[in-house]
Amino acid sequence: MRLATLRTETGTTAARMTSDATAIALDYPDVGTLLAQDGWEELALADGAVLNPEKDHFAPVILRPGKIICVGLNYAKHIDEMGHERPDVPTLFIKFPEALIGAYDDVEVPTFNAETLDFEGELAVIVGKRARHVQEAHAAEYIAGYAVINDYTQREYQKRTQQWHQGKSLEKTAGFGPWLDTEWRPGPAITTTLEGTVMQHSPTDDLVFSPAKLIEFISHIYPLEPGDVIATGTPDGVGHARDPKRYIQNGEAVRVEIEGLGAIENTTRVQSR
Amino acid sequence: MRLATLRTETGTTAARMTSDATAIALDYPDVGTLLAQDGWEELALADGAVLNPEKDHFAPVILRPGKIICVGLNYAKHIDEMGHERPDVPTLFIKFPEALIGAYDDVEVPTFNAETLDFEGELAVIVGKRARHVQEAHAAEYIAGYAVINDYTQREYQKRTQQWHQGKSLEKTAGFGPWLDTEWRPGPAITTTLEGTVMQHSPTDDLVFSPAKLIEFISHIYPLEPGDVIATGTPDGVGHARDPKRYIQNGEAVRVEIEGLGAIENTTRVQSR
Repeated sequence: MRLATLRTETGTTAARMTSDATAIALDYPDVGTLLAQDGWEELALADGAVLNPEKDHFAPVILRPGKIICVGLNYAKHIDEMGHERPDVPTLFIKFPEALIGAYDDVEVPTFNAETLDFEGELAVIVGKRARHVQEAHAAEYIAGYAVINDYTQREYQKRTQQWHQGKSLEKTAGFGPWLDTEWRPGPAITTTLEGTVMQHSPTDDLVFSPAKLIEFISHIYPLEPGDVIATGTPDGVGHARDPKRYIQNGEAVRVEIEGLGAIENTTRVQSR
Repeated sequence: MRLATLRTETGTTAARMTSDATAIALDYPDVGTLLAQDGWEELALADGAVLNPEKDHFAPVILRPGKIICVGLNYAKHIDEMGHERPDVPTLFIKFPEALIGAYDDVEVPTFNAETLDFEGELAVIVGKRARHVQEAHAAEYIAGYAVINDYTQREYQKRTQQWHQGKSLEKTAGFGPWLDTEWRPGPAITTTLEGTVMQHSPTDDLVFSPAKLIEFISHIYPLEPGDVIATGTPDGVGHARDPKRYIQNGEAVRVEIEGLGAIENTTRVQSR
């Protein structure tokens, strides 16, 4: 089952996709609100109005996650080839909901933020049930499903202090969607392209810390709630690590596709204000 | 004017304090909801039921801030005495709302988190109006007021990866309150005591980045919304920096007082689960 948050004339609605371009409207304003209901799996099967969403109707699949927790270095092959030790614990940092945009929305950055912009194609895990002190073996039941996210980054801001957050949370930069898929499972490849050129390509199960392990780890720090998002980290190939470095320029499109799950594509627009 | 969020028999209510122990109930469930209303300064003057809150009635003054942005090294004297250069830009990291507790609530940590617990007494700035691309000279009008916060920290978790977040956001650790004061202004001393012994003592205007400067800086990254909180950093004297190190033990009380603003006092209780 695929659940999306679609823009309507009066706001947004949760919807069950019946194909890539048709959907049934559900009686909740977004997928996050739906996931907060007990028995959301049943509620999501309800009948409703038929929708034919255009690309610009796709809102961030969760409009305002209570938490967006991003994981640092997590792809094993990338860590090995960089000569790093595999870490014992995940590195966590935070992106705020204001950073999210829909699956095909433009990235909007003001001129003073328009340098050293970079992509990080990632698999997003979406929480479906309150999780506190959950063991890895039981973590699957707390995962509602998966989506695609771009952990869009301003590298100068990320690196000018010890803490990455300020480079990881620029408003209206991180594509998130197009839908939450409840049946897809990690393994198939993630591919990030910049203006059609492949920049990142990796299987999605080459993680040091799997989604289940991340649920265990994080839920021992604080509770995870329905609609919370874990961005599981990016494979090698980001623009900042290339020689020469390759940052995103005004007008350029980044596409992140996960095989069998879906794709997001966002064009960066530098805007004077 | 002092605004608090008080626990009632049926939930919580925003309230205007008429003394340290008396208040008028306002028609909003918490101060965050009140601040989200246009003209909240007028609405906060309304009449209502008289309350006589006990200490355990004080909930976190904003129940669920959309953002809690913490500032790293920010006290000038502390930076100088440590021999660091004064930074050009603030270091920012994030605490989630699940970390907050009321002004006199117990800190509740499970046994596996009970090591290297530390206090960081701080001045909290609470946003009163949406702020985006705000200049320092105009920042004052976006500040609703000030409160006291303890940026309670698990030092091992803070330092075992490059990113501090996982040590800064343990559930139910960060005292926040007792009220939002709209008239108090930075300058008077902040004093943190552990079991009655003074551990931190500093004027609150010895900041490299003032509240106004922080509003400017952060609002150029993403919007600030009513009820968002900026924890402005801690002065010298934390337990981790002492020789020998002095961490908080089970049953010990930390009090953070800011002269003329108020005080919070939270006892740490280690709980098996």
